Amino acid sequence: MLILMERGATPQQVQAVLEVLEAAGVRAFPQETAMALSILAPHASQALKPDRLEPMGGVAKVVPITSPYKLAGTDVVASRTIVDVRGMKVGGEELVIVGGPCGVESREQLFTVARYVAETGVKLLRAGAYKPRTSPYAFQGLGTEALELLKEVRDTFDLGIVTEATEVETFEEVERVADLVQIGARNMQNFALLRRAGRSEKPILLKRGPAATLEEWLFAAEYVLSEGNRNVILCERGIRTWADHARNTLDVSVIPAAKALTHLPVMADPSHAAGRRDLVIPCARAAVAAGADGLLVETHCQPDRALSDGPQALLPSDFIHMVVQVRGIHEVVRDIEKHSRMLF
Amino acid sequence: MLILMERGATPQQVQAVLEVLEAAGVRAFPQETAMALSILAPHASQALKPDRLEPMGGVAKVVPITSPYKLAGTDVVASRTIVDVRGMKVGGEELVIVGGPCGVESREQLFTVARYVAETGVKLLRAGAYKPRTSPYAFQGLGTEALELLKEVRDTFDLGIVTEATEVETFEEVERVADLVQIGARNMQNFALLRRAGRSEKPILLKRGPAATLEEWLFAAEYVLSEGNRNVILCERGIRTWADHARNTLDVSVIPAAKALTHLPVMADPSHAAGRRDLVIPCARAAVAAGADGLLVETHCQPDRALSDGPQALLPSDFIHMVVQVRGIHEVVRDIEKHSRMLF
Amino acid sequence: MLILMERGATPQQVQAVLEVLEAAGVRAFPQETAMALSILAPHASQALKPDRLEPMGGVAKVVPITSPYKLAGTDVVASRTIVDVRGMKVGGEELVIVGGPCGVESREQLFTVARYVAETGVKLLRAGAYKPRTSPYAFQGLGTEALELLKEVRDTFDLGIVTEATEVETFEEVERVADLVQIGARNMQNFALLRRAGRSEKPILLKRGPAATLEEWLFAAEYVLSEGNRNVILCERGIRTWADHARNTLDVSVIPAAKALTHLPVMADPSHAAGRRDLVIPCARAAVAAGADGLLVETHCQPDRALSDGPQALLPSDFIHMVVQVRGIHEVVRDIEKHSRMLF
Amino acid sequence: MLILMERGATPQQVQAVLEVLEAAGVRAFPQETAMALSILAPHASQALKPDRLEPMGGVAKVVPITSPYKLAGTDVVASRTIVDVRGMKVGGEELVIVGGPCGVESREQLFTVARYVAETGVKLLRAGAYKPRTSPYAFQGLGTEALELLKEVRDTFDLGIVTEATEVETFEEVERVADLVQIGARNMQNFALLRRAGRSEKPILLKRGPAATLEEWLFAAEYVLSEGNRNVILCERGIRTWADHARNTLDVSVIPAAKALTHLPVMADPSHAAGRRDLVIPCARAAVAAGADGLLVETHCQPDRALSDGPQALLPSDFIHMVVQVRGIHEVVRDIEKHSRMLF
Repeated sequence: MLILMERGATPQQVQAVLEVLEAAGVRAFPQETAMALSILAPHASQALKPDRLEPMGGVAKVVPITSPYKLAGTDVVASRTIVDVRGMKVGGEELVIVGGPCGVESREQLFTVARYVAETGVKLLRAGAYKPRTSPYAFQGLGTEALELLKEVRDTFDLGIVTEATEVETFEEVERVADLVQIGARNMQNFALLRRAGRSEKPILLKRGPAATLEEWLFAAEYVLSEGNRNVILCERGIRTWADHARNTLDVSVIPAAKALTHLPVMADPSHAAGRRDLVIPCARAAVAAGADGLLVETHCQPDRALSDGPQALLPSDFIHMVVQVRGIHEVVRDIEKHSRMLF
Repeated sequence: MLILMERGATPQQVQAVLEVLEAAGVRAFPQETAMALSILAPHASQALKPDRLEPMGGVAKVVPITSPYKLAGTDVVASRTIVDVRGMKVGGEELVIVGGPCGVESREQLFTVARYVAETGVKLLRAGAYKPRTSPYAFQGLGTEALELLKEVRDTFDLGIVTEATEVETFEEVERVADLVQIGARNMQNFALLRRAGRSEKPILLKRGPAATLEEWLFAAEYVLSEGNRNVILCERGIRTWADHARNTLDVSVIPAAKALTHLPVMADPSHAAGRRDLVIPCARAAVAAGADGLLVETHCQPDRALSDGPQALLPSDFIHMVVQVRGIHEVVRDIEKHSRMLF
Repeated sequence: MLILMERGATPQQVQAVLEVLEAAGVRAFPQETAMALSILAPHASQALKPDRLEPMGGVAKVVPITSPYKLAGTDVVASRTIVDVRGMKVGGEELVIVGGPCGVESREQLFTVARYVAETGVKLLRAGAYKPRTSPYAFQGLGTEALELLKEVRDTFDLGIVTEATEVETFEEVERVADLVQIGARNMQNFALLRRAGRSEKPILLKRGPAATLEEWLFAAEYVLSEGNRNVILCERGIRTWADHARNTLDVSVIPAAKALTHLPVMADPSHAAGRRDLVIPCARAAVAAGADGLLVETHCQPDRALSDGPQALLPSDFIHMVVQVRGIHEVVRDIEKHSRMLF
Repeated sequence: MLILMERGATPQQVQAVLEVLEAAGVRAFPQETAMALSILAPHASQALKPDRLEPMGGVAKVVPITSPYKLAGTDVVASRTIVDVRGMKVGGEELVIVGGPCGVESREQLFTVARYVAETGVKLLRAGAYKPRTSPYAFQGLGTEALELLKEVRDTFDLGIVTEATEVETFEEVERVADLVQIGARNMQNFALLRRAGRSEKPILLKRGPAATLEEWLFAAEYVLSEGNRNVILCERGIRTWADHARNTLDVSVIPAAKALTHLPVMADPSHAAGRRDLVIPCARAAVAAGADGLLVETHCQPDRALSDGPQALLPSDFIHMVVQVRGIHEVVRDIEKHSRMLF
C-alpha cells in the first residue's frame, strides 16, 4: 500500500498515519520525493483497508502496490506525452531523427558531421563527451573540451544537442549543454543517476539496458518521473541474445508493447542494435514501421578512423539515404494511424 | 576439401581418386546425393593441393571446405532466387502474403477463414493438418481429414496451400496437397526430414529454429538444396530470448543479414514471433520494412475458440488492416530499392 | 479433460462417451497409444463435470488437463525410477559414468579408447555411429560399419553401448546394438522419433534441447513414456545463451528442478556444455554436486585428430582424473542424502 | 599501445613522448590513475614500433593493447591473489562462507540471523543497508540506521561485515562499516562507482552483471584495480537466460574460465542464481565443486516476512545443512588440487 499525502500535509498528520499503521502491526517507511510525500507500507493491505486511512487528515490517496507504474502507466495519464526537445516534438506527428558520431573526437570531425547532418534537415545532433567504455584503457571521451565544442556546433548549425551523462558528478556540466540528456544502456539501473536526472530541467532519453525486461525499463523511467521530471523518452537499442550475426538483437516488438503500457514516447537506436553498417538502415526502417517516434543513428565522416563504434557508423551518403527511407516509412505508418482513428 | 565428380564419373575414376587420398594419408568419404557424387575429405587440404586431383579423370571440381554454403551462398549463385508458389513469385517484386488459421479444425472454420483471406486478395492459405505440439496430449491436428479439406478449399477459393510436413512418414501425403511445404521451427535440424524435403518437387518453406544461428539456418537450407530441390524459402519466426513481453523476439536484422549471405528469398512469421494479437501487425510491418519478401500470418474467425495459438491469431478485420498496411510499407521499400539500383 | 478408457473398453463404450461429449457441445479426439486408449476433450471441463463420465462403462479415469505430466510427474509415480542399463542402475545409489569418443572413426580409435575407459572401471561406452551435423558436408558418422564395431567392442571389453538414433528409418538398426539409445539435443522435439523410441524395448537417454525449457523437456519425455517405454533418462547438456566463454551454459539448477517434478533419473553431459577441454572436469564435478545420477563424457585418444568435437574431448589421463574426482564428490552427496533421510 | 611512464616521470618527459606520437600522426591521451601515469595511443602500433619509445626518458614500458587485462590478467601477476577479509583468506585454502539476510530490516531480525550464522562457524555476515531495487516504490533499505546496527552486530558476534555500496555519495559511509564492500550486479558497469571502489582501502566484492560476458566482468575489475585497490573478489550470481525454472542461470563454468584468465579469487552467490529456496543448496554445492573460493548465501529467520528476496532465503536449519554440505564438497576439491600439484 502506498499512502500519498497531500502537498501541504503536516508532520502531525504524517505521524497520525504512522501510528495507525504501527497499531495494526504494519511496518511503514515515509518517503519524500520532489513530487510528493508518501508512506510506503508494503504489507499493509493484509492488515487494514484503504478506507481506514483515506478519511484521515492530510491523506490524498491510498494506492494499492499491485499496480506497478504509478507515473509512467497509461492508466494514470490517459493522453500520450509529447516531449519538446528544442522545438522538436518527440511523440508528436513528426518522426524525430537524431544523427551524429558516437563520440566527439575533434573540432574538425564534429563540424564535418554536423554540417551534413544539418543539410539533411535533421535538427538534433548526437555525440558523446563522456563515453562509458568496457575497458578503462579505451578512449573515454574528451569530456569538458567536447562539451565546449558541442556548444559551439549548436550555435553554428542551429542543432539541438543530445549527449550522455555518465555519472552524478558531471551531470550538471552535461545538462548545461545538452538539449536532451541521454542515460546510457549500462546505466539504466544506476539509480543515483536516474534520481539526479529526475531533478533536471532537461528532457531525458532513457536507453533500455541490454538485458532489461520491459518492466525493469519502465521502473527505471519511474525513478526519473518520481523525482519530478516528466519529460522522459524511452529508447530501444537492441538486446543481448545468443544470435551472432549482429551486435545486439533489435527488439521491435517492445516498441508497441511499451506504448501499450506507458504514455511516454519511444525511440530506437538501430546503430547499437545492428553493430554492422549494412544492417543499420533495414533496422532503422523496421523500428519506424513498428511505431517508433524517433531514431538515434550514428554517422561519421570517416568511420574507419573513428575512436569508437566505427563499424556501425553510417557513411555520410548512407545517412542521407536512411533519412529519406525512414521518412517514407513513417508517412505510411502515420497515415495508417490517422485512418484507424477515423474508422474506430 | 570436397571433390565434386562429374555426372558420368565411373566407379573406377572414383576409386582412383580414393587411392590418391589414401596414399596421402587422408581419410575420405564418398557421398552421393541427387545432385552429385562427391568425395568428402575433411583434412585433405593439409596433405595435398587441389591441382593434384583436378586433372584426374571424372573430377569436376575441387572445392575448399572453408567456404561453408556450397549451394545457398551468394558467391555460388549470383542472381536472387525467385520461388514460384502456384503463380506467386516469392523473392520477386510483389510482397507475398500467406494467411490462415494455425490448424485445420473443421470444414466450417477452414472455409470461413479461407473466404475472407481470399477476399483481401491474398492468394495463399496456411493451415496445419499435422501439428507438432509440445505436449503429446495437446491437439495434434486432423491429419488426413484436414488434407482432404485443404484440397477442397483450394479448388473452391483458388488459393495455394501452405501446410506443414512434420515427419518423413507422412511427407508424401502432405506434399500431394501442398503448393508450399513448410518445415517447422522445431524440425529445422531434423536432417532426415530436410533430406526428404530435398527430394520433393514442391517448394519448401524452412522456418528458423527458435535458437538457431544464421549459420545453422543456412546449413539446414543446404541440406535441402544438396538433395536437388532448389526451391527453398527461408522464414524468420522469432527467437527465444529472456524478453518476456512477447512469445519470441522477432529478429528483424536477420532478414538483411541472411540476404547478404544467400540468394534464397526470406519471409517472416510475425504471429509466432509476437504471440500476442496486439503486437502482430507492428511486427508484420517491421519485417516488411526490414526487407522480407513475404509474410506468414495467422488469422482465425473465432480466435477465442481456436484449438491452438488463439491468442496470436488476427481477427478477420485485423487481417484486412494488416494486408493494407504491409502493402503500403512494401511499396516504399520497393521504390527505395529500385531507386538505389538506378543511383549506384 | 483426458478420458482414459480401460484396457478392454469396447468400441461401443468409446462411442457412448463421444456422444455424451458431443451432446455437451464439446469437441473430442479419440487417441490410441500403446499404453492406453483415451479421449482428448480440451475444453470439456467448461461444459461438464468428470462425474458425468466416470461412471460410464469402459471409462477408467477422467484426468483434468491442467496437470501437465501424466506419466513423468512425481504426483503420478511416487518412487524414483531406476533405469537398468546392462546392469548399471541409473538413478540408484551409484554414479553411472559413460565415456567415449564423439563418433566411431576407426576400429583402432574405438578399441584404444574403449580399453582405457574400461580400465577406469567405467562400464558404459558412448560413441556415435550416426552423427547429426550442422553442415551436410561434415562427417556424418560411419553408420552400419560403426555399429558392427560397437558390437565387437562390447564383447571384447564387456562394456554397455550408448549410441544415438538420429532418425526413424535407422532406429531399429541402432536399437539392436545399443544398450541405451540416445536421442540427441537437436531431436528433442522430433516427435516421430520420440514416438518410435517409446515403442523400443531399450532404455532411452533424452538430451535436453539447447533452448528447451524444463516443461518442454519433460513433455518430450512424456512422448516416449506415453508410447509404453518407461525407461527414460533425462540428460542436461548445456543451454544456448549469450555467454561466450563456453560452447553452452551448463544449467546445473535444472537437475534438482527436474527431480522435483519428475521421478525419472537425470544425467549430465559436461563435454557439450563446456566445449573446451579445460572446463569439462569442473563442469562434471558441478553436475554431480548438483545431484546428477550420471555423466556422459567425451574422451579421445588423439583429440587433435578427432573428426568431430576434438576440442572438448578429454585426454586419456584427464579422463581417469575426472572419474576419480566425480566419484569423490558423489560420495559426499550420497552421504548427505542418506543423512538427511535419517534426520527428517 | 599503452605507454606506461615511470613513477617519477617529469612533465617534460611526458611531453617529449607526446611529441613523438604527434609527429607520427598518432592521437594520444595522457591518463593518470593512482597506480601510474600512462599515455593511451590506440592506433600507435600501426605508425611506430615500441622500440622508438622505450628508450626515452621516463618511459617504463610500452604495452601492446591487444593484451586486454593489464592488472587482472594471469600473465601480469603469476601467483593467485588472496584477499584478507577480517582474517578470512579469500582465495586461500579455506572455503569462505558469507551468510545473512538480503537487507537489514530491524535490530531483532539482524541479531537473530547473526546469532545462528555465527553458531555455524561462519565468520562473515552479509546484509544490505542500501538496497538497489527495480521499483522506486520498493523497500530501499534502512540506510544509516542499518549501518549502525551492522557495527553493533559485528562487535557482538565477532563477525566481519559484507554490505553493498550503491552510489558514490554514500560510499564512504558504507566503507567505514564494511569489512568487504559489495558492488552489486546492476552496478557492474557503473564506472564512477568502480573508480571510487578503486580508491577505497577496503576489499571489494564485484558481482557479475546479469548479462555480462567474462570479458566485461574482468574489465570492470580492471577499473577497480587501475585506481590502486588490488583486493578484488569476483562473484558469479547467475545470468539472465530464457530458462524459466530458476530466477537466473548459475553459470558454473565461468568460475574455472575466470580463474584461467585472472589471478583474482572467485566466489558465487547461489541465492540470486536460484531464486527458489529448494535450488539454493544444490547450486551452492555445484559452485564449490566447480572451484569457487567462497559463497555468499541469503538466510532469514522468517523468510515469509522478509521485505525483499524472501523466496530465496534459506531457513536457519537449511543454512546449517548447507554449510556442512559445501564444506564436505570443498574438502574433496581441495584434496584433488593438492594431489594434482603433487602429480604434475
